[in-house]
Amino acid sequence: MSGRTTVTAEPGTTTIEIIREFDAPRDLVFRAHTEPDLLRQWLGPRRYEMRIDRFEARDGGRYRYRHVDPDSGAKYGFRGVFHGDPSPDLWVQTFEFDGWPGHVSMDTLRLEDRGGQTISRTTSAFSSVEDRDGMISSGMEDGLSEGYERLDELLVRLGPIAARS
Amino acid sequence: MSGRTTVTAEPGTTTIEIIREFDAPRDLVFRAHTEPDLLRQWLGPRRYEMRIDRFEARDGGRYRYRHVDPDSGAKYGFRGVFHGDPSPDLWVQTFEFDGWPGHVSMDTLRLEDRGGQTISRTTSAFSSVEDRDGMISSGMEDGLSEGYERLDELLVRLGPIAARS
Repeated sequence: MSGRTTVTAEPGTTTIEIIREFDAPRDLVFRAHTEPDLLRQWLGPRRYEMRIDRFEARDGGRYRYRHVDPDSGAKYGFRGVFHGDPSPDLWVQTFEFDGWPGHVSMDTLRLEDRGGQTISRTTSAFSSVEDRDGMISSGMEDGLSEGYERLDELLVRLGPIAARS
Repeated sequence: MSGRTTVTAEPGTTTIEIIREFDAPRDLVFRAHTEPDLLRQWLGPRRYEMRIDRFEARDGGRYRYRHVDPDSGAKYGFRGVFHGDPSPDLWVQTFEFDGWPGHVSMDTLRLEDRGGQTISRTTSAFSSVEDRDGMISSGMEDGLSEGYERLDELLVRLGPIAARS
């Protein structure tokens, strides 16, 4: 189960559901989502450098980051706001890609404790089938799987440090 | 057309679409959505008093208001955050009812100018069919229609004032 990212997007609906198991405690997985210095080490494809301009993980806080292609110099910017203070039980944020303005989604993340392992459940809710399908066809699934593999690796590196503290 | 609120919520989907025409210029309809002193005069059922604790209509701004039943003293609280700076072209906010915590939706509002009249298009996007159906069964449709009737009345009162300024 660990290591496989399950993405569900039924035809004609406006949501994407993403389930992933991580071989690490819930608090550690949560930290990797909230601390910019950790987040930049895993979110998105390996070939891009991640630059975080702003990341305020609190009610009304905003985030803004860019994926930068070091070969071409191309930049892909993303931004949104947090609804409520993020916790492992519930994390709600909006999400918008600079390259497709006005097509905003709402992501809900829940982390479940499974005795030292963690199940991550994300739902992206869109306003229309067109918006949802646009996200699917952007290749988000590949970027997501690769990002989660990088998170696996980060969690292995962090494990001994977290156990000592 | 004016005066009728069209609410669409197809079975098994996770969105609600609301269309309403107003016999007033777009800027005036937008002001009635952004200025707390105007908003409190129309949003929600007539029998409730609206108390706005916070209403920051800007990117990352938060809002929080309560509908108070003057007879029973019962209070119904709502809160959310704004994604992006609201404009007549696009207004995005999250929405959560205190009485049903964790069931957050994202509302997208667009106001179309029709030569002195305005068409309002709102889409509420939910993370699940359960969340969407819960909102429908809360009686939101009645409260919405009544609120929009009050907005009609407010726009009539504001019309001559706006024309003079």
